Amino acid sequence: MTSRRDFLKNCGTLAGAAGFSYVGFSSHAVYDTPGRYETGKGKGMTLRFRPYELELKHVFTIATSSRRTTPVMLTEIEYDGVIGFGEASMPPYLGESHETVSNFLKMVNLARYSSPFLMEEILDYIELLAPGNYAAKASVDIALHDLAGKLMNQPWYRIWGLNTEKTPFTSFTIGIDTPDVVRTNVDEASPYRILKVKLGQDNDKEMIQTIRSVTDKPLCVDVNEGWKERQMALDMIYWLKDQGVVFVEQPMPKVLVEDLSWLTQNSPLPVIADESVQTIGDVKKADGVYSGINIKLMKCGGMRSAFKMINTARALNMKVMIGCMTETSCAISAAAQLSPMVYWADLDGNLLISNDIFDGVTVEDGKLTLPDRPGIGIISKKYKVSSK
Amino acid sequence: MTSRRDFLKNCGTLAGAAGFSYVGFSSHAVYDTPGRYETGKGKGMTLRFRPYELELKHVFTIATSSRRTTPVMLTEIEYDGVIGFGEASMPPYLGESHETVSNFLKMVNLARYSSPFLMEEILDYIELLAPGNYAAKASVDIALHDLAGKLMNQPWYRIWGLNTEKTPFTSFTIGIDTPDVVRTNVDEASPYRILKVKLGQDNDKEMIQTIRSVTDKPLCVDVNEGWKERQMALDMIYWLKDQGVVFVEQPMPKVLVEDLSWLTQNSPLPVIADESVQTIGDVKKADGVYSGINIKLMKCGGMRSAFKMINTARALNMKVMIGCMTETSCAISAAAQLSPMVYWADLDGNLLISNDIFDGVTVEDGKLTLPDRPGIGIISKKYKVSSK
Repeated sequence: MTSRRDFLKNCGTLAGAAGFSYVGFSSHAVYDTPGRYETGKGKGMTLRFRPYELELKHVFTIATSSRRTTPVMLTEIEYDGVIGFGEASMPPYLGESHETVSNFLKMVNLARYSSPFLMEEILDYIELLAPGNYAAKASVDIALHDLAGKLMNQPWYRIWGLNTEKTPFTSFTIGIDTPDVVRTNVDEASPYRILKVKLGQDNDKEMIQTIRSVTDKPLCVDVNEGWKERQMALDMIYWLKDQGVVFVEQPMPKVLVEDLSWLTQNSPLPVIADESVQTIGDVKKADGVYSGINIKLMKCGGMRSAFKMINTARALNMKVMIGCMTETSCAISAAAQLSPMVYWADLDGNLLISNDIFDGVTVEDGKLTLPDRPGIGIISKKYKVSSK
Repeated sequence: MTSRRDFLKNCGTLAGAAGFSYVGFSSHAVYDTPGRYETGKGKGMTLRFRPYELELKHVFTIATSSRRTTPVMLTEIEYDGVIGFGEASMPPYLGESHETVSNFLKMVNLARYSSPFLMEEILDYIELLAPGNYAAKASVDIALHDLAGKLMNQPWYRIWGLNTEKTPFTSFTIGIDTPDVVRTNVDEASPYRILKVKLGQDNDKEMIQTIRSVTDKPLCVDVNEGWKERQMALDMIYWLKDQGVVFVEQPMPKVLVEDLSWLTQNSPLPVIADESVQTIGDVKKADGVYSGINIKLMKCGGMRSAFKMINTARALNMKVMIGCMTETSCAISAAAQLSPMVYWADLDGNLLISNDIFDGVTVEDGKLTLPDRPGIGIISKKYKVSSK
């Protein structure tokens, strides 16, 4: 993981540099900026990327870890004077890092393609460059979608024929913490209509009771594989239903397929796969084991794969939710383009950080609100490092 | 079925009328043309349609019927001065007709939608207007896609990120007939690299032997549910493999699910579902029963559904082919937009008729060749009724 000092070394100069244009449509004078890398110079597409470190507003605890920053890689693909933006987010427990993403992106040679519209081929090539590396792959996929959307002068939701009025409410995540901190977080979440609670530690009921002492909003819970025994899990789900919980995400370890099938069959709430379903090949395996799946761009490799997974899951009568990592408004806005197709959204990753560098999708009265801008719909924000 | 006399009554006047502009971008002076119908006048989209009768170059025989014409309904949706074209094709054995399609389209009210880009909602509305009526639904879907593509100024293959170089060869269909006629038809099919043979009568081996006496091109066979016993079907498939057949379509009646599963498991050639798979809900049911599916716009309701079915089938590791009815270059070009995604194409419906009214996809050296035009890529042809 890149330290905060490395982060400042990488980004401080950029922030202070006159004419810094990373997040603009012009890319002049950025080629020799420290920390940046460029491949595929030529007449076609040029890929550039640089590391960035997201600062979380609150220390973030899930069943398996706890942290205050998330490394991301910011990408851009330029073609014919137009730039598409992308992003890879690398929460440490998923195994990608600035180094792995950088190594992956250095292998990418987009100069071999004559047009960014050859998306299926380009993204098949990206997929086959190396196994895994899904955040790195997503950063290329998102930048390519942003670019193609801008070249067509259309937002992706419109290209996909979706109605912006059909975006769901997004849930806002409340991490595992002391009752006092949880209460403060719930208070800060007042604009949101649904709260997502991370369970799977030894204080699950206390967490829910603490939240219920301050709000009666609908809740969803993400157990991150934290429960190990199916009868206990089922009892807990019945208890959660009485507490106003609407669905349960990844209640048990993904390897316990039989237990999960049993749990889904007997559960009074929908059981959603998260860790169990990474890419499109996993959707079929989830059929019969879960009621639905949670799709994340950083897990599946980007918007193309997510779009196909949503269509496949719906064809198999599974519910779909779309989730995220901590990300800037770049990757969140990319995911939000798909959100009119899903049942639930958990796209709060940009709301949990203090140093977002893009404006894109917003949340209005708890509902995802898509901007009428081409591509993934983002524009640059004045770059600032949080003073926290 | 509409008789030839009705057809002339319906279309002759149109053909002779000065300023007939059905197939142009302007729609002035067509409102009061006999045989035409219009709904949804207003500021938004306007739907128009009129019946047409395709004349087949050869009497066409499959296992269940024989005919010389196919009724179609030509549709157009106009929005903001731009017109998208669509088509319903109604081979009689599928139960739709000029009358049923007309009745369906008269129910359609597009004035309730502010934009043609709300495709998911509009097509969900079309889907729910009445059960069945898939050709009628496809005629709206295709016109809407053509319109939206024109408004984005992009062909659909480009919007979907597909490479036109990846279009497959299309097969050309040889109907069941006397050896002499079959030999003539094979001769006429010289530009095509793959031939499709309709089997399922009592002269299957004779058909293949007749064709093999004049060409060694790869063959695919469509049995249209014609074989009734699985061991006989398997023996036949082994024989066909030795004759250079590459896959077998719908060998047995769709209701014989167990026999078909057994046949697929034991078959040395891929077994493809046609009658078994109509809409996206059927794809899951075909998993394990067939090696792949044949998608047709007139069966599934159009391009949106076909696109989702292709993605779903691929996610389930099934092979996909795209087929057609006898259709003008309108519906064929719509289907061809999807063809870079499929394994095999059987898009020869426009080549089997003598009175096509559009130019669109062409076949060059046996390969589907997509035009670089927006929407579904068609333009009008000088209207002429065949002199045959």
